[in-house]
Amino acid sequence: MSDNRLESVDMARLSTSDADFESRLDALLAWEGVSDAEVQGRVAEIITAVKEQGDAALIEYTRRFDRLAVASMAELALGAERLEQAYRNLPEEQRDALARAAERIRLYHEHQKPVSWSYVEDDGTVLGQQVTPLDRAGIYVPGGKAAYPSSVLMNAIPAHVAGVREIVMVVPTPDGVLNELVLAAAHLAGVDHVFTIGGAQAVAAMAYGTESVPRVDKIVGPGNIYVATAKRAVFGQVGIDMIAGPSEILVVSDGGTDPEWLAMDLFSQAEHDEDAQALLVSWDERHLEAVEAAIARLLPTLEREGIVRESLARRGALIHCRDLDEAVELINRIAPEHLELSMAEPNAILPQVRHAGAIFMGRYTAEALGDYCAGPNHVLPTSGTARFSSPLGVYDFQKRSSVIHCSEEGASTLGRVASVLARGESLTAHARSAEFRIKP
Amino acid sequence: MSDNRLESVDMARLSTSDADFESRLDALLAWEGVSDAEVQGRVAEIITAVKEQGDAALIEYTRRFDRLAVASMAELALGAERLEQAYRNLPEEQRDALARAAERIRLYHEHQKPVSWSYVEDDGTVLGQQVTPLDRAGIYVPGGKAAYPSSVLMNAIPAHVAGVREIVMVVPTPDGVLNELVLAAAHLAGVDHVFTIGGAQAVAAMAYGTESVPRVDKIVGPGNIYVATAKRAVFGQVGIDMIAGPSEILVVSDGGTDPEWLAMDLFSQAEHDEDAQALLVSWDERHLEAVEAAIARLLPTLEREGIVRESLARRGALIHCRDLDEAVELINRIAPEHLELSMAEPNAILPQVRHAGAIFMGRYTAEALGDYCAGPNHVLPTSGTARFSSPLGVYDFQKRSSVIHCSEEGASTLGRVASVLARGESLTAHARSAEFRIKP
Repeated sequence: MSDNRLESVDMARLSTSDADFESRLDALLAWEGVSDAEVQGRVAEIITAVKEQGDAALIEYTRRFDRLAVASMAELALGAERLEQAYRNLPEEQRDALARAAERIRLYHEHQKPVSWSYVEDDGTVLGQQVTPLDRAGIYVPGGKAAYPSSVLMNAIPAHVAGVREIVMVVPTPDGVLNELVLAAAHLAGVDHVFTIGGAQAVAAMAYGTESVPRVDKIVGPGNIYVATAKRAVFGQVGIDMIAGPSEILVVSDGGTDPEWLAMDLFSQAEHDEDAQALLVSWDERHLEAVEAAIARLLPTLEREGIVRESLARRGALIHCRDLDEAVELINRIAPEHLELSMAEPNAILPQVRHAGAIFMGRYTAEALGDYCAGPNHVLPTSGTARFSSPLGVYDFQKRSSVIHCSEEGASTLGRVASVLARGESLTAHARSAEFRIKP
Repeated sequence: MSDNRLESVDMARLSTSDADFESRLDALLAWEGVSDAEVQGRVAEIITAVKEQGDAALIEYTRRFDRLAVASMAELALGAERLEQAYRNLPEEQRDALARAAERIRLYHEHQKPVSWSYVEDDGTVLGQQVTPLDRAGIYVPGGKAAYPSSVLMNAIPAHVAGVREIVMVVPTPDGVLNELVLAAAHLAGVDHVFTIGGAQAVAAMAYGTESVPRVDKIVGPGNIYVATAKRAVFGQVGIDMIAGPSEILVVSDGGTDPEWLAMDLFSQAEHDEDAQALLVSWDERHLEAVEAAIARLLPTLEREGIVRESLARRGALIHCRDLDEAVELINRIAPEHLELSMAEPNAILPQVRHAGAIFMGRYTAEALGDYCAGPNHVLPTSGTARFSSPLGVYDFQKRSSVIHCSEEGASTLGRVASVLARGESLTAHARSAEFRIKP
């Protein structure tokens, strides 16, 4: 790191009044996590092998990719006792913090449970929806440096609250490295079985089932490009959550928050990886300068300085806008994963926020609190997908069945309508099936 | 059709007590709607062309695939007046039936609206979720013989009830054939714009936007293999609904329903297309024989006899089971799109039905009533995907944002927990961002 870099920050400065603002913003936001034909081909091959050879394929791939000298699936399975043991053996401070976070996440998600409903019409016909949990959910947890216990809590607790009968977790352990915090989190979150497998082979095993790994109904959780490609490939055979892009934050500041707090909030996003995105918007030019100075000052004190510098240089920006209204327009255009409304009166603009994964209100709500323990889920729509998708929740582990119970009278009335419409579509067996129930 | 075929029915007869029952059922249920590499390649090419050339590509493909001699997009756009005109010009009986169906569908879907919620903790911290509609939804409606006005109602009304700002519909008109019932349904359902384009090019246009076609946030609606492949390809750029397989019904009868009613219910499923699946389960052997006889008797009276015969021969079955409990096991294993509980006391087993798209209760609730006008949606999870997915609903056109508003006190308490967990994950900027908010 040169002295020069310690003093200045390599980070885009934009203004909505710039002639090229739109195109520069588009370029900053652009992200397409496409897997090339080669990755797709290798993933297809792995999926076929697991479908055809089951456990044998899992053992072979785990030997090859994770460098584990295993001979049987028994060596790749961890039971409930092992998870509980990991929890008991944690240092007290970590154990308490993890338990506290799990409890808060559980409490929040209890509020999300959809309920069955129905109503009765005048002729006695009953209409409604019955809500039921999935039988079995599969949680993918990345191994190695990105093995996050908080991610286990956030993925498994909603499934548990939903009433899922069995929760299966897979986590690769390259070279045999096992993360005790991850196992402890699995214990707290209600995970039933853990298999120490990963990659496309683990996704295939959960989608189709093997002799040892039970077939699940939905697979959630983040992973590398092979995992994401495999999830996309098995979509339909099982449910999947969104394919996540890099993590992002958009901070909107009214100028009244300590610049060092905001600098650290941006860093907390940027430290994830070099593709992470940290954006700050304000109509206060001086404030933007103060935050930039704080960034320059604090950067050299960061453990992950290199990653943060790279991330800010590639995808970060300090954006000057005209006023609060224009900031709201930017929010809805960007549809950020994380939105921090660092301002005195965030409630005043909340109703105008149409698209955001999670909204952190006021100066005290650091995004990091939401990542761990505030309660809401940290699995959120990225890359503008908050335009059409939601945080992971209990509703992702339940589904609905329509319920229709026609009275004799109701069937007769509805039969007349259905008959006309079915004949209009030339589906005469439909029409006659309805007509059978018309009272003479 | 030979005399022989008129007298007997070519339809599988299974019994759960058969040694080969499991494998025969598996074979009947098997369905994989895979698109081969050639289709994928052609779809990828079309998507790229639409992304790069916009309207020009749409015009070119429409000329080529739909054989329309159009020169501009203006010729491929229909406004609100044109839709209303189609509605006004319908024969009264059809207009009334369509309006009645639309009204009932709207009423039912009003019950599905999720609501924003929040709660306040002792220290003043507020947690909740804000529910918002999508800005823009795109409805794909197949053209030609499968142009169903009921499908327009079922796809567009939930979007309208959800509060979606703009609803765009595409429907191909091969050789210029326009279905007035489809346009009338679009008028009733609150569709804002119609473009007479189809195929992968229409999906690409809605996913990326062109000069004329606005970019939407989610694409729903059925289509052929090109449409399905294109939807899968743009998933992530926009939201999509499930990729639908062939339609199916599982009827469970206690033996007390008129065999001719049941035969017609099975036909109403089978007449969709040769891949549609109609299954009847009963523990009453004589009753199964009576239904088989009714099938043989009524088959020659059907307009779509050829399709029905083919569908029953390929994928239909009459299944004898031991008792009601075994029937319930079959239901949950098959997870049917449509489930008809044709029995005296369907309420008694409803709580045991874990997986089904829509449940038609009792002897009077013909599945056809649900297809058109009972109120619930007819877009339902097929091919066993009811294990993890739900009928199309208002919830598909809305999304949620987590809301977190920590009080000064709350941020301080949570900051301590977050700090421990973030340091456990070596994310120290996260930790420091939280620690800034801890009160000394």
